[in-house]
Amino acid sequence: MKALVYDGPRDVRIKDVPDPGIENPNDAVIRVTSTNICGSDLHMYEGRTPMEYGRVLGHENLGEVVELGEGVEHVRRGDRVCLPFNVCCGHCGNCERGNTAFCLNVDSDTPGGAYGFAGMGSYSGGQAEYLRVPWADANCLVLPEDAVEKENDYVMLADIFPTGYHATELADVQPGESVAVYGAGPVGLMAAYSAYLRGASEVMIVDRHPDRLKLAEAIGATAIDDSKSSPVDAILERTNGIGADKGCECVGFHAHDPRGREHPESTMNRLVSSVKVTGTLGVVGAFLPQDPGAEGELAQHGKLPFDMGEFWFKGQRMGTGQANVKAYNRFLRELIHRDRAKPSFLVSHELSLLQAPSAYENFDQRLDGWTKVILKP
Amino acid sequence: MKALVYDGPRDVRIKDVPDPGIENPNDAVIRVTSTNICGSDLHMYEGRTPMEYGRVLGHENLGEVVELGEGVEHVRRGDRVCLPFNVCCGHCGNCERGNTAFCLNVDSDTPGGAYGFAGMGSYSGGQAEYLRVPWADANCLVLPEDAVEKENDYVMLADIFPTGYHATELADVQPGESVAVYGAGPVGLMAAYSAYLRGASEVMIVDRHPDRLKLAEAIGATAIDDSKSSPVDAILERTNGIGADKGCECVGFHAHDPRGREHPESTMNRLVSSVKVTGTLGVVGAFLPQDPGAEGELAQHGKLPFDMGEFWFKGQRMGTGQANVKAYNRFLRELIHRDRAKPSFLVSHELSLLQAPSAYENFDQRLDGWTKVILKP
Amino acid sequence: MKALVYDGPRDVRIKDVPDPGIENPNDAVIRVTSTNICGSDLHMYEGRTPMEYGRVLGHENLGEVVELGEGVEHVRRGDRVCLPFNVCCGHCGNCERGNTAFCLNVDSDTPGGAYGFAGMGSYSGGQAEYLRVPWADANCLVLPEDAVEKENDYVMLADIFPTGYHATELADVQPGESVAVYGAGPVGLMAAYSAYLRGASEVMIVDRHPDRLKLAEAIGATAIDDSKSSPVDAILERTNGIGADKGCECVGFHAHDPRGREHPESTMNRLVSSVKVTGTLGVVGAFLPQDPGAEGELAQHGKLPFDMGEFWFKGQRMGTGQANVKAYNRFLRELIHRDRAKPSFLVSHELSLLQAPSAYENFDQRLDGWTKVILKP
Amino acid sequence: MKALVYDGPRDVRIKDVPDPGIENPNDAVIRVTSTNICGSDLHMYEGRTPMEYGRVLGHENLGEVVELGEGVEHVRRGDRVCLPFNVCCGHCGNCERGNTAFCLNVDSDTPGGAYGFAGMGSYSGGQAEYLRVPWADANCLVLPEDAVEKENDYVMLADIFPTGYHATELADVQPGESVAVYGAGPVGLMAAYSAYLRGASEVMIVDRHPDRLKLAEAIGATAIDDSKSSPVDAILERTNGIGADKGCECVGFHAHDPRGREHPESTMNRLVSSVKVTGTLGVVGAFLPQDPGAEGELAQHGKLPFDMGEFWFKGQRMGTGQANVKAYNRFLRELIHRDRAKPSFLVSHELSLLQAPSAYENFDQRLDGWTKVILKP
Repeated sequence: MKALVYDGPRDVRIKDVPDPGIENPNDAVIRVTSTNICGSDLHMYEGRTPMEYGRVLGHENLGEVVELGEGVEHVRRGDRVCLPFNVCCGHCGNCERGNTAFCLNVDSDTPGGAYGFAGMGSYSGGQAEYLRVPWADANCLVLPEDAVEKENDYVMLADIFPTGYHATELADVQPGESVAVYGAGPVGLMAAYSAYLRGASEVMIVDRHPDRLKLAEAIGATAIDDSKSSPVDAILERTNGIGADKGCECVGFHAHDPRGREHPESTMNRLVSSVKVTGTLGVVGAFLPQDPGAEGELAQHGKLPFDMGEFWFKGQRMGTGQANVKAYNRFLRELIHRDRAKPSFLVSHELSLLQAPSAYENFDQRLDGWTKVILKP
Repeated sequence: MKALVYDGPRDVRIKDVPDPGIENPNDAVIRVTSTNICGSDLHMYEGRTPMEYGRVLGHENLGEVVELGEGVEHVRRGDRVCLPFNVCCGHCGNCERGNTAFCLNVDSDTPGGAYGFAGMGSYSGGQAEYLRVPWADANCLVLPEDAVEKENDYVMLADIFPTGYHATELADVQPGESVAVYGAGPVGLMAAYSAYLRGASEVMIVDRHPDRLKLAEAIGATAIDDSKSSPVDAILERTNGIGADKGCECVGFHAHDPRGREHPESTMNRLVSSVKVTGTLGVVGAFLPQDPGAEGELAQHGKLPFDMGEFWFKGQRMGTGQANVKAYNRFLRELIHRDRAKPSFLVSHELSLLQAPSAYENFDQRLDGWTKVILKP
Repeated sequence: MKALVYDGPRDVRIKDVPDPGIENPNDAVIRVTSTNICGSDLHMYEGRTPMEYGRVLGHENLGEVVELGEGVEHVRRGDRVCLPFNVCCGHCGNCERGNTAFCLNVDSDTPGGAYGFAGMGSYSGGQAEYLRVPWADANCLVLPEDAVEKENDYVMLADIFPTGYHATELADVQPGESVAVYGAGPVGLMAAYSAYLRGASEVMIVDRHPDRLKLAEAIGATAIDDSKSSPVDAILERTNGIGADKGCECVGFHAHDPRGREHPESTMNRLVSSVKVTGTLGVVGAFLPQDPGAEGELAQHGKLPFDMGEFWFKGQRMGTGQANVKAYNRFLRELIHRDRAKPSFLVSHELSLLQAPSAYENFDQRLDGWTKVILKP
Repeated sequence: MKALVYDGPRDVRIKDVPDPGIENPNDAVIRVTSTNICGSDLHMYEGRTPMEYGRVLGHENLGEVVELGEGVEHVRRGDRVCLPFNVCCGHCGNCERGNTAFCLNVDSDTPGGAYGFAGMGSYSGGQAEYLRVPWADANCLVLPEDAVEKENDYVMLADIFPTGYHATELADVQPGESVAVYGAGPVGLMAAYSAYLRGASEVMIVDRHPDRLKLAEAIGATAIDDSKSSPVDAILERTNGIGADKGCECVGFHAHDPRGREHPESTMNRLVSSVKVTGTLGVVGAFLPQDPGAEGELAQHGKLPFDMGEFWFKGQRMGTGQANVKAYNRFLRELIHRDRAKPSFLVSHELSLLQAPSAYENFDQRLDGWTKVILKP
């Protein structure tokens, strides 16, 4: 089959690779019909991670079940399914508590697996015609009768919609609250969108790309351009000097100033200052334990010069980490099914699998207007 | 001053009564500018409760602070304030845990106080020109600069908006869930409205009054007319036979069949059947410990023939009781202030205080179109 | 193999039945080394349920893994495992939320399965030499190196320890609180024991059997004999007239007065009166949707004359249903392993499988001193 | 009256100061009978904070009510009361949500007040014969009939017992879990003690003072001496390489290596490494937004070189800040009253007020055996 293969930093190609098959009685194989390019694919694309050469990328996958192992009981051939980017067993101590992003049984050195992802097991990615899905009963979210019609919405359940939602869950956003979101990329926009779904009274979102700020305003958020003035001041001003009730960090170690220099601590520290005393922060932007390519010794060792004193004096709380997609995907699916959520609003490009290499190149350069790409194998 | 006085069953009159004043250093006096008639006023009006003759009714009050005791530190003269219908001290063991509807320091035999309410202390009501507010710093919700412009929205913070919201909180409504609501009176409509604010994917609301069902549809809910067919069947059908995720009871002991005969257990038992295994019920419709006027011996002693077996087998949960208004009113105020909630949609009549007696009469007959009355003293 | 077979009301026998084997790739077979007789076995023994003749009883099982299907990845041959009495798939919508007692994939008409249990699927029981375990990776709790030494403690993880704990979880028992428990049978004692493990300041437990009240006192609880005086009065007196903070119902539909007459509502209504305003009740005593053998028409249809008026006025909450064993068993296992819990304190008899029929007879008569029986096949 | 006055770094004296009186209708005056010296008093004593010269220290206070303002309704003359170290109004937006450590109405520049505390308002301290208590109904915890008999236990409710408990609440310690605690000073010991009260299966506590480690073992904890080997390794070894379920930081910015050099980040980063994936950290050790006296530029600006990468990869959560004493003190009082908690186990010295200056000197030098000092004015 055709698949997008990582051949080294900024070098991805469509190649012929062997078709996946059933390796374990609990496996399924799906024919991929939609697979997104994600911001974290770019981390691998840029060579910032220890991604193995020759692997297939793609962790935001949706498709049709075409083959089933004999232990699979509840998913059926022909089902349209969306797959959480985290591969999980469903029954380990972490999975059974809902922490499926930290599955203990994946074939990785550390808890948590994913399709086509550096350091998260050997699972092949879905930017391909077919994909093997382990523990199929646990991993397949079966879609309703409007699966094809709303495919561009449902594919967002693989990662960015639950990940944005996770930020608001970690931040414990409650109805009526104000929320500060740093980063208006796909995940930040999904966090803002989720905050409103949960009943936030106001969402203030900080970025500097005009196309992103425009999308933020289109969903009702207050867009703050941090290339023009202090986002902390803007947020304090809109909240009578008190700060937002809750905050979401959707940028991560890539945080940089308008001139492109990385300051991985900048959004975290600004978020602490933007959120009120006793507020809670949800941090889904990724931070790395080791980052040899970073500027500065602290960052290379995964350390941030964090404003712990201010954070502690304010009595704030913080939750972090990858989204436990299965904790949310059934419920977010219902919002799409009942026409109360339409996350496809941020899709900018629908392309064929063959166009993937050039899409990576354009997306990596953050060309204006390239907010989210769906590949259709 | 002028005030609406209860002179006996179905006999309320506008009378001259003494102006209230500061009785305790923590008191305030407000000039009432909006005060609603509530469905629970009708329980008293109808003589169904042990309401004392000669008392002033009215527990949904909003006004301007005109006088302050010397212990009041944070509310100021001229503040526009909305008052939770529950009078609370703010510092007893129940208040400090947020259970302000069950204040232990009110001058009542049992926990919980209210303005102009049978069995909830001696506090005079607000269907009058002025109102004494005890523990003013604890009880006054100060309104923002749009207080006058949105007065008909803000006055709903006194009772029905928080009470409807409380139903969804007791029912633990989460984003993406489906919700069954029994009763489309003002509280039921506010419950449905709140469920959507919290991110419900679908709200099904059961009633039989066409004007209420129409309002339900206007806010996006599925209206189910229980005078025409089984609401349980309708809800099971819309949920693939599984039942709604959560349920709200907004009717109470007055539940009756289409011919007017009371069956106080009917909505509770139907709710159990309408909600799925492991679902949670929020019960804000009032049930009475003693109800001498009820039909049937069980109801007279405050007992329901409750489907405990089905409830238990389904592993359901239930929360009940009057709303802890202070737990919600700040946050709901923000939703109004930021134009994300407009609870005044259900107001049908704005009348002067002098028109109150006839308004009671019409409201009590549940005349078509009389959904909610605001009095303007 | 030998197994205890249900041949009709009060007729159980040891018979030879076929050995169980692997029927599905996710199955395991265990050699049973400990299996308890449970109070709910008596409901079946007495013919109160629609139990099929010829089935093997026993849902509190512990043993050694002897055979594995090829889909099982994490449980290993030779592992000592304790099995939750609820059979669950681990991946359905209820299981993934931790509601494993309400699994949607068991072969039963309604959610929830169990070994050797009426109305909960066709799964054979463990009062036998061997037992087939479906979805073995999800159902087997692997025990640590002291599995044999503390086997009588660990076997309590199959049902009564988590079920008693579930009562305290449903009741939301918090450190420092007082707790009223109705019923000092094995589950009630485990609820009281769990309440103390969670930091309760006082547990008051109501029963009338001297041996049970003695065990209650041995674990530090205040024992209240309801055959001598009003338990509600006793609890109110010990709580300054306020009532206990939280309450647990551990009796169920079998509740009866000292003369043996069933009043299935009696413990529920007393619990409502024993618990304070805003308190929460955890109800793990079973109530039946249909009970043709009950006295009185209400009970036959699964209805209780429930004090809804008092319950609602007090703003109480209630949670019910079978325990989601997997939600607790890992953590309770650690308490046993670290010598901080020793639930075997209530074991009165260790018998061979062959002695099971007479044990049922004695246990059913609630002979003094027969608190809990472990069978050793 | 006599009081302990701060006259500058390491200079405290007993002086005559004016008696306090009622300044506001909601005030009370208490005659102090027990008042502790706290570790945070030492921060002020050492001149590490901007404490004003001439102020009276002491925020852990217990005494008898001797005078009441006319707005106080529920506290009575003669009541024995323990006072939360946080002064709070009880009715602001933070107080009403239980965040009494962050009261918005105290006379301080930032949320949160305390008696005799730098930067937390002008409230005088209780290391004196009498103390003025603002908002007396909100601040006084009335003690039961054993108030005098258990005075050394009840006085711990002012600060260290709730503060230690707060660490376990922020860390969300659940029954059966293992907990790592850094710091075995009074607060760390109270955190360990609280973890067991909440049902922890194992508590591992890290320190290097033999007297503290001995007390830790006396309450059943595993004592780890970090002057001898890596505490992270010791904790990982005891938890099969997985890490503790939860963690508590009870040291703060004073964290230093065995040679006395401050590394304010050291306990935080070790805690991250000591706790498992998905675990939660409760941080009650104080960190300062500005610390001009610190070694190193980062620390001077309140920044820590924090292991954000590891923290994020592990998906951990963290809660911080001063304890909301009123959220816990009623319930902890019940544990003392019912003989289920005895926090006075860590008292090493009972002294008169006149001995306070030398007590400060000895306590500040952390002389072996000086774990906790109670002054008896």
